[in-house]
Amino acid sequence: MLGADQQVVFTYFHFASSPELTDAMVKSNAVCIAYETVEKADRSLPLLVPMSEIAGRMATQEGAKYLEKPMGGRGVLLGGVPGTARGNVLVLGCGVVGTEAAKMAAGLGANVTIMDVNLDRLRYLDAVMPANVSTRFSTAANIEELLPEADLVIGAVLIAGARAPQLIQKRHLKTMKPGSVMVDVAVDQGGCIETCRPTTHDNPTFVVDGVLHYCVANMPGAVPFTSTVALVNATLPYALQLANDGWVTAAT
Amino acid sequence: MLGADQQVVFTYFHFASSPELTDAMVKSNAVCIAYETVEKADRSLPLLVPMSEIAGRMATQEGAKYLEKPMGGRGVLLGGVPGTARGNVLVLGCGVVGTEAAKMAAGLGANVTIMDVNLDRLRYLDAVMPANVSTRFSTAANIEELLPEADLVIGAVLIAGARAPQLIQKRHLKTMKPGSVMVDVAVDQGGCIETCRPTTHDNPTFVVDGVLHYCVANMPGAVPFTSTVALVNATLPYALQLANDGWVTAAT
Amino acid sequence: MLGADQQVVFTYFHFASSPELTDAMVKSNAVCIAYETVEKADRSLPLLVPMSEIAGRMATQEGAKYLEKPMGGRGVLLGGVPGTARGNVLVLGCGVVGTEAAKMAAGLGANVTIMDVNLDRLRYLDAVMPANVSTRFSTAANIEELLPEADLVIGAVLIAGARAPQLIQKRHLKTMKPGSVMVDVAVDQGGCIETCRPTTHDNPTFVVDGVLHYCVANMPGAVPFTSTVALVNATLPYALQLANDGWVTAAT
Amino acid sequence: MLGADQQVVFTYFHFASSPELTDAMVKSNAVCIAYETVEKADRSLPLLVPMSEIAGRMATQEGAKYLEKPMGGRGVLLGGVPGTARGNVLVLGCGVVGTEAAKMAAGLGANVTIMDVNLDRLRYLDAVMPANVSTRFSTAANIEELLPEADLVIGAVLIAGARAPQLIQKRHLKTMKPGSVMVDVAVDQGGCIETCRPTTHDNPTFVVDGVLHYCVANMPGAVPFTSTVALVNATLPYALQLANDGWVTAAT
Amino acid sequence: MLGADQQVVFTYFHFASSPELTDAMVKSNAVCIAYETVEKADRSLPLLVPMSEIAGRMATQEGAKYLEKPMGGRGVLLGGVPGTARGNVLVLGCGVVGTEAAKMAAGLGANVTIMDVNLDRLRYLDAVMPANVSTRFSTAANIEELLPEADLVIGAVLIAGARAPQLIQKRHLKTMKPGSVMVDVAVDQGGCIETCRPTTHDNPTFVVDGVLHYCVANMPGAVPFTSTVALVNATLPYALQLANDGWVTAAT
Amino acid sequence: MLGADQQVVFTYFHFASSPELTDAMVKSNAVCIAYETVEKADRSLPLLVPMSEIAGRMATQEGAKYLEKPMGGRGVLLGGVPGTARGNVLVLGCGVVGTEAAKMAAGLGANVTIMDVNLDRLRYLDAVMPANVSTRFSTAANIEELLPEADLVIGAVLIAGARAPQLIQKRHLKTMKPGSVMVDVAVDQGGCIETCRPTTHDNPTFVVDGVLHYCVANMPGAVPFTSTVALVNATLPYALQLANDGWVTAAT
Repeated sequence: MLGADQQVVFTYFHFASSPELTDAMVKSNAVCIAYETVEKADRSLPLLVPMSEIAGRMATQEGAKYLEKPMGGRGVLLGGVPGTARGNVLVLGCGVVGTEAAKMAAGLGANVTIMDVNLDRLRYLDAVMPANVSTRFSTAANIEELLPEADLVIGAVLIAGARAPQLIQKRHLKTMKPGSVMVDVAVDQGGCIETCRPTTHDNPTFVVDGVLHYCVANMPGAVPFTSTVALVNATLPYALQLANDGWVTAAT
Repeated sequence: MLGADQQVVFTYFHFASSPELTDAMVKSNAVCIAYETVEKADRSLPLLVPMSEIAGRMATQEGAKYLEKPMGGRGVLLGGVPGTARGNVLVLGCGVVGTEAAKMAAGLGANVTIMDVNLDRLRYLDAVMPANVSTRFSTAANIEELLPEADLVIGAVLIAGARAPQLIQKRHLKTMKPGSVMVDVAVDQGGCIETCRPTTHDNPTFVVDGVLHYCVANMPGAVPFTSTVALVNATLPYALQLANDGWVTAAT
Repeated sequence: MLGADQQVVFTYFHFASSPELTDAMVKSNAVCIAYETVEKADRSLPLLVPMSEIAGRMATQEGAKYLEKPMGGRGVLLGGVPGTARGNVLVLGCGVVGTEAAKMAAGLGANVTIMDVNLDRLRYLDAVMPANVSTRFSTAANIEELLPEADLVIGAVLIAGARAPQLIQKRHLKTMKPGSVMVDVAVDQGGCIETCRPTTHDNPTFVVDGVLHYCVANMPGAVPFTSTVALVNATLPYALQLANDGWVTAAT
Repeated sequence: MLGADQQVVFTYFHFASSPELTDAMVKSNAVCIAYETVEKADRSLPLLVPMSEIAGRMATQEGAKYLEKPMGGRGVLLGGVPGTARGNVLVLGCGVVGTEAAKMAAGLGANVTIMDVNLDRLRYLDAVMPANVSTRFSTAANIEELLPEADLVIGAVLIAGARAPQLIQKRHLKTMKPGSVMVDVAVDQGGCIETCRPTTHDNPTFVVDGVLHYCVANMPGAVPFTSTVALVNATLPYALQLANDGWVTAAT
Repeated sequence: MLGADQQVVFTYFHFASSPELTDAMVKSNAVCIAYETVEKADRSLPLLVPMSEIAGRMATQEGAKYLEKPMGGRGVLLGGVPGTARGNVLVLGCGVVGTEAAKMAAGLGANVTIMDVNLDRLRYLDAVMPANVSTRFSTAANIEELLPEADLVIGAVLIAGARAPQLIQKRHLKTMKPGSVMVDVAVDQGGCIETCRPTTHDNPTFVVDGVLHYCVANMPGAVPFTSTVALVNATLPYALQLANDGWVTAAT
Repeated sequence: MLGADQQVVFTYFHFASSPELTDAMVKSNAVCIAYETVEKADRSLPLLVPMSEIAGRMATQEGAKYLEKPMGGRGVLLGGVPGTARGNVLVLGCGVVGTEAAKMAAGLGANVTIMDVNLDRLRYLDAVMPANVSTRFSTAANIEELLPEADLVIGAVLIAGARAPQLIQKRHLKTMKPGSVMVDVAVDQGGCIETCRPTTHDNPTFVVDGVLHYCVANMPGAVPFTSTVALVNATLPYALQLANDGWVTAAT
């Protein structure tokens, strides 16, 4: 039986993806409070946001790097230089991940399109984003229109507690430019790109039909200095509450 | 014989285009100093600049208006709205006219490309223009690549004292979208679009191969309030010099 | 009696303004679901927003055009050019229409003032709008102070389900500059300018006391290419719901 | 007789304004090289620029402060707040001083007009300045039009080696708002405002016809930390040249 | 007994800080409705916001001024000039006051950090603020890291109905640069800087451990022209409601 | 003997670094015109500029990537996320390379300082660069002050026809943060960082005293798609001249 004097472990668990971890924690008799389950009144997930911000910003950084020829890409500089065409970046999803990815791509001088079905959010982004970000309503037809032009596609569609919809299927790849790059930030929830499967920082990319796929499941792990601070900023108030009030009170 | 006590007429003349005017002025025995021939040490033409600024800014305003369906255009709003594709504007030439046209098109939210062969100028524009203006080196191939996407093309190639090169030929028109609009600001110097011929504010447009042409030769004439002030700002120092020093001294 | 197998017509109806249409639809026995009555939980009208965005952006485009002398205006270029005074634009109302109108006017380089009684909205606009847009609390005194300076006035006050308040009365017109332009986007709800009455794209303007009035009731109709896409983006999710769930379920 | 082994004093001298200093330096037999006389090939004065930059930025800071009621001003906040009118700032002269003053005033949210007769410079400023800075050609009529609206006037007209022209005369003051503020940065060259006379940091302001005048002759002296660094940045290369090559070689 | 026909006084009262005022008002038998107690459904205080906006914008203006050497500061220009280090501004609190203070400091060209524990608000500011404003989570460690670098610290932490937390204690002052400046806008609620105590416009500053403190309790009082308009904008709708409906109805 | 009918080879040669190439070309009897020696009247090198632009933009991209932990860096995200400190980028040199590097770093949200001894250039950059780029005069003391804070240092000091000065020496490295990154774009001219030596895309980095060095000599080679277009834009006019006029005339 659980009591107020038990050990509390407050961190990311992702029990669903690891039965071993689940078993071990059950045996440990510790109180496990998973970061990923902390929810605010408006159903937002405050302890996932910082990781989404970092993953979004990194997605563009990775895309830019893997577009280089020696990395397997088509040898395009995202922002081009004066007198040349800019690279085209297509961002699917305008939540935290997509917004941050688009902002960085705009900062590097690319021609950016961000797509979503949430028109209110597109309107907000239209008001606050740099002028080289344009917004498009997300439909299969629009995606198919823009894919052949894209140098970099960033999959950023995450639906809380559900599998991401597969907006890009294998058949689309052959319409794309050889050496173009796809980064799927939703890969650990199934991914919004059919051909994506999780990779690691040791071996981050693979090629399908000439298109480079970057699908590292734990992107923020590459910038632990920043990630740790961002995460602590978000968890601190909850940790203090647990410490001060005890987990029984705090969790209610 | 001309003397310091003769009447001086200081205005635009454009003698080449009007033998009658030339004859009449010769007979009048007045001293005619043409605005269009006043040249600075760096060979720039200071009394043409204000009209170029106005014509450039108006070119976009006209293009936006004539893209409306009731005006004959394809019914596109230049900047689109959040969730729709932006209109594409192609500006040929990055001198005063092209720069001002591009700035206004960017201000209306369009996706703008400005083309020229002057790389140093493209670099400057890349540094100071809004992010939705991209620069491209001007080649026949690049123009042909962008024309089919364009909703509005603005011809702004003027070469001092020479006929503007015809960058767009009749054969290009059929690659363009029906109802797209062309504004040729260089029309009074022969135009940089083959199918352009001068029109007037009374009857400003005509259609060739489905493409609307706006070619009013004297665009600034439509905004006399602004044009007059802009012109006087530029001519005043010269007029004062003529009045104070006499034309013999001033013109040397 | 209505049933789940009846024909459903899902479009704009505006029954109030057309008894004939109303009668015809009643006789047709079809299920009529009017776009303009679709309401979200927060009482916003999602299928009116895209048309407001387009009308707002067009309002400035029309204003700029009709300020030209050959169109009947005072011959002023909205943004002026360096060294001349900028045109003054006064936007009444800071909802969707007013915001988009102000953004375009700022993009053309004008000196813009946007007025409303909603201070929270003015604060948001102050944070995200270009620096040449300033905000003013809307009072009769403030309107009277700014009208004599204005080159272009855009009426954008719409109150859902109510007649727009007449902020500008006939007596105000004589304080304005001859040839200045008024665009009333609220004209189909009675207008917020007393002297406005609906016009059409064929004959869009009329003059009262020297002031040009542009009052086309269906402005987005001039850019059908953009309007259609924008509208479909907004209606698609509702249409799909009607198709998938049937109108009985969907409408509840 | 002067020789290469003499003592060299390299600093600001402004001999013209101090016969005592001139005499003393002559007696000292030192080689005096005045900062204010160092000239580049293009006749610019590189050792005056940093002080002009600082004075320009400070001019706005002082103006904002002295507009406060307890300081004698009319009690206006330069940028206003959302819903209120912004303060109007008129900057005369678009050289270094005027440009920096205008930039700061724009940064504080004011409505700024910068005036000059140099149209090319106005065009450059129009391209790079924030959107709440507008440019006007400088004429007596334009100044008289804008003075009654101005909350803050900054005199920044300096003509190298000549007395600044008196663009604002005493008779203009009564057209201005009581409690408005004038800062004349050109005061040590006679000033471009007739009623200005040099003041000091101890007693910086005086009132003429209801208008507060701030005319501290040595404004950068109030921020010695910044001024010293800025000055050393500019003088260092010259000082090194003097030290390495000797003054005889360096000065040729 | 109170009735609908009694005199109503609708203004700021701050009864807690003045027993005399409280007594007098009680005796007067007037209906006293305090601006500071008007609350919206979301618990925001609409009649305090305009004063916070003004105080926030002024805080930077005062800080810039008091950093001047003759005013007692360290002689630093907030924005520096090209080639010199910018001044560092630390803003504690990202509510209305802190946001406006940061915006002005950014406008003057400083290097600005704004701190708070509200991550959602920091994210919004990161999206809409100028690029020279960076956001930091507020912790004692972060404050201690940034204080030694700061030229200007603005205390803007206000907690509705509670004493502001003392984020900066006396012991911190000796880690700061001599002549740096602190402005505590929360001083009338106890202040978020331990060493602050209310001052007046007549004698606005004092020095503790070499750090200049500006703690005028009623900052907006210095710009009555702006403050009055801003306040009336906010109170007008409430005053009209009181006048039209009577205080009994209006207050319910 | 050379004649107008000889074969002409017009490309980069860099003869100095390859005696074998030199010998072979001498034997070939071809006319060799080296891109790197084409000079304009103002002594600028128009065929080197595009490569500098690309290398500058890439320098930041590489720096961001190698700051990742798995790449050997300290695990910092250049722009941070809201609530965390931004990365600090120090750019040495404000020519083409440095300017483009700084612009990209600003676009990624970093805190950027660009250093040079050319004050006029720093002033221009201060006017046109994003607000998170600050300028500093380059001195040994300033470099030593900023190095310990830097996450990324970009060496971009190139002096035409001369060895780059070694602004950072080996002794400086131990003052830097472990895992910080240095990119030396000047490495093929000796480098402005003492510890840099040329590397290749196959093995781009090495570590000295805990600091990661990225010194690929031919950075633009990684984005051949962009580089080729940029280079052809610049060389085309010269190639046409050679083809049309013959090398004898063209080279005079």
